Amino acid sequence: MSTTGQVIKCKAAVAWEPGKPLSIEDVEVAPPKVHEVRIKVVATGVCHTDWVNLYETGKGMKFRPFPLVLGHEAAGVVESVGPEVTNFSPGDKVIPLFLPQCFDCDRCRSPKTNLCKKNWENAQVGILADGTSRISCNGQQVYQFLGVSSFSQYTVLSDASLAKIRDDAPLDKVYLLGCGVSTGYGAVVNTGKVEKDSLCAVFGLGAVGLAAIMGCQIAGAKRIIGIDINPDKFEKAREFGATECVNPKEHSRNIQEVLVEMTNGGVDYAFECVGSPAVMTAALESTIDAWGMCVIVGWTETEAMNVVVEKILMGRTLTGTYFGGWKSVQEVPKLVDDYMKKKLKLDEFITHKLPLDQINKAFDLLKLGQSIRALINLWPEENNPKVA
Amino acid sequence: MSTTGQVIKCKAAVAWEPGKPLSIEDVEVAPPKVHEVRIKVVATGVCHTDWVNLYETGKGMKFRPFPLVLGHEAAGVVESVGPEVTNFSPGDKVIPLFLPQCFDCDRCRSPKTNLCKKNWENAQVGILADGTSRISCNGQQVYQFLGVSSFSQYTVLSDASLAKIRDDAPLDKVYLLGCGVSTGYGAVVNTGKVEKDSLCAVFGLGAVGLAAIMGCQIAGAKRIIGIDINPDKFEKAREFGATECVNPKEHSRNIQEVLVEMTNGGVDYAFECVGSPAVMTAALESTIDAWGMCVIVGWTETEAMNVVVEKILMGRTLTGTYFGGWKSVQEVPKLVDDYMKKKLKLDEFITHKLPLDQINKAFDLLKLGQSIRALINLWPEENNPKVA
Repeated sequence: MSTTGQVIKCKAAVAWEPGKPLSIEDVEVAPPKVHEVRIKVVATGVCHTDWVNLYETGKGMKFRPFPLVLGHEAAGVVESVGPEVTNFSPGDKVIPLFLPQCFDCDRCRSPKTNLCKKNWENAQVGILADGTSRISCNGQQVYQFLGVSSFSQYTVLSDASLAKIRDDAPLDKVYLLGCGVSTGYGAVVNTGKVEKDSLCAVFGLGAVGLAAIMGCQIAGAKRIIGIDINPDKFEKAREFGATECVNPKEHSRNIQEVLVEMTNGGVDYAFECVGSPAVMTAALESTIDAWGMCVIVGWTETEAMNVVVEKILMGRTLTGTYFGGWKSVQEVPKLVDDYMKKKLKLDEFITHKLPLDQINKAFDLLKLGQSIRALINLWPEENNPKVA
Repeated sequence: MSTTGQVIKCKAAVAWEPGKPLSIEDVEVAPPKVHEVRIKVVATGVCHTDWVNLYETGKGMKFRPFPLVLGHEAAGVVESVGPEVTNFSPGDKVIPLFLPQCFDCDRCRSPKTNLCKKNWENAQVGILADGTSRISCNGQQVYQFLGVSSFSQYTVLSDASLAKIRDDAPLDKVYLLGCGVSTGYGAVVNTGKVEKDSLCAVFGLGAVGLAAIMGCQIAGAKRIIGIDINPDKFEKAREFGATECVNPKEHSRNIQEVLVEMTNGGVDYAFECVGSPAVMTAALESTIDAWGMCVIVGWTETEAMNVVVEKILMGRTLTGTYFGGWKSVQEVPKLVDDYMKKKLKLDEFITHKLPLDQINKAFDLLKLGQSIRALINLWPEENNPKVA
């Protein structure tokens, strides 16, 4: 039975209020409006940003309205398209994009940035272009996180917020390209532009950090130093290409002093994949005079970092990345190609698989540093969607 | 009578201790040692760094040993050369370089930086390569500021710290290329790489800021906004190419908010030419999301600035410049050519001319914001140097 044009009733993990675990609910997903696409979400991951937004709202993150459906790293299949949608058809495999690419705004037209402005303010407050969300629960509007909300079996997105990918792509792997892996990898190849034989340091060995390490290896870095206070991460980091790993807790001196000594002056490139202002300062100060480049990848929306001016005057550059600098609609399909050609690792990021009703466990594993990425299976038993 | 190989007795302005005015003294300038050149200083300027080092040592500047002869922006003529000097001969017109270019260290071999390492540590503590200075006064060693000391009628420098310039260059103009003008201009064209039709803001309208404005104009910027708390600087700024001038004191809001509103989002490039951490933060925050570039040009060695992380994550870049990114030995002569071709303004920077014995007045004028550059004439009556 076709669901096109109908409200779909399905399962979603709803965040009713900050600081409380998610609750599995029956939600209603409205049909797509003009320039919108409804997708069946096949795979999603839990990213640190989901965790922060639930458990640290107002502390490092701006407040976003609740209730909401979190989730922004996913892959799925187009169920139906709204009016004026020309680039998607039912059955297309897609990756949702929390950063759209409209091809029309001044930023999309510039080669200098990927920060498309389309729907930006709306996405930050959990609504689509018309000022509402397509998800409701018991008649109450549920906000959509970053215009995505992949912790739902179905969701609706702007047609500028979807990348169409090849038919043979395994969704339960390439969903990782929707956030963490693209971010860390792009930070290295697009933002830092790491050169062959460079010395690199990657702070924080979660999925983003591992992807940065992978990027450094692909770029031909000579030394890739992984830094984490959890030494359980080191084995995986070496698998991804780290040549050395350092635990700041094992040193009495600042980590930047340790790195400067290890590298006889500092690394050429440092990537902060934690989201901590203190680590950002350490990352900057671990780079070498004259051309040291520090890229901030980890996320914090409300905090400030301390920058010793002389470090900047002595030739360092501090910059940031958002979704790894990728022009999303255009470049995510190419990243999928790179995975299919085995240039990029993805399988190795997935340490756990859990059904949707155990999603809170995935949050716990992430916070405890016991998982890299848990794949959330939204369809543990493949059921046909119900029409409400 | 030839002075070659002899100790020269001449006049110099000596800084005996921090916080006290300079004192005109008879000093003795030893002959150049291996790879050194002795020059007759014909023209010098007083730069803000000289002032800070005398009056704010320990406050924004690291302590450097006293007594010393300040002065690092100058031009002169080679008097004699030491052993193994091959690139200079007596009579050559030269510009002393507080930043050398040895062509041999890893930094000189890299296209990414101009920060030559040669004699760096020594220069910071006022000595030449052999660990001593060539200037003494009443038998006491007098340190050489940044390896130069141009507030002396004669001085001795490393042969890596001198740019040989064309014979027809007027020394009483091109001396400005030894520091401030090259720094501000290079910050724009080398470090910021300002593009045609950009929106630019320049904070601080002293010589460095005016040179940055000149650079923005040469680069084809569409709007060039000069910012200073002293509105007396605005006329000169417009002469150099500022399209608008803003006095932060005339606004109740932060200057960055004023600029963001004036430019509908922020400037593409901001140049901090003051050396104040608070102004640096304002400069960074006055740039636009997505590609804003903030270049720190003003100098402070001991202070830190506050950077709101989200400003970086939203696509801004913070970087610094030292001597405007110029590879000094190689590029200063080209800047002289550009002046001779009337591409660069220099005459317009010189607002005062004073003899050496009024050098303290030049310091006062600078501090009071009443001068841009005072040209110090070291030879008010042309005398032959005396041999000690």
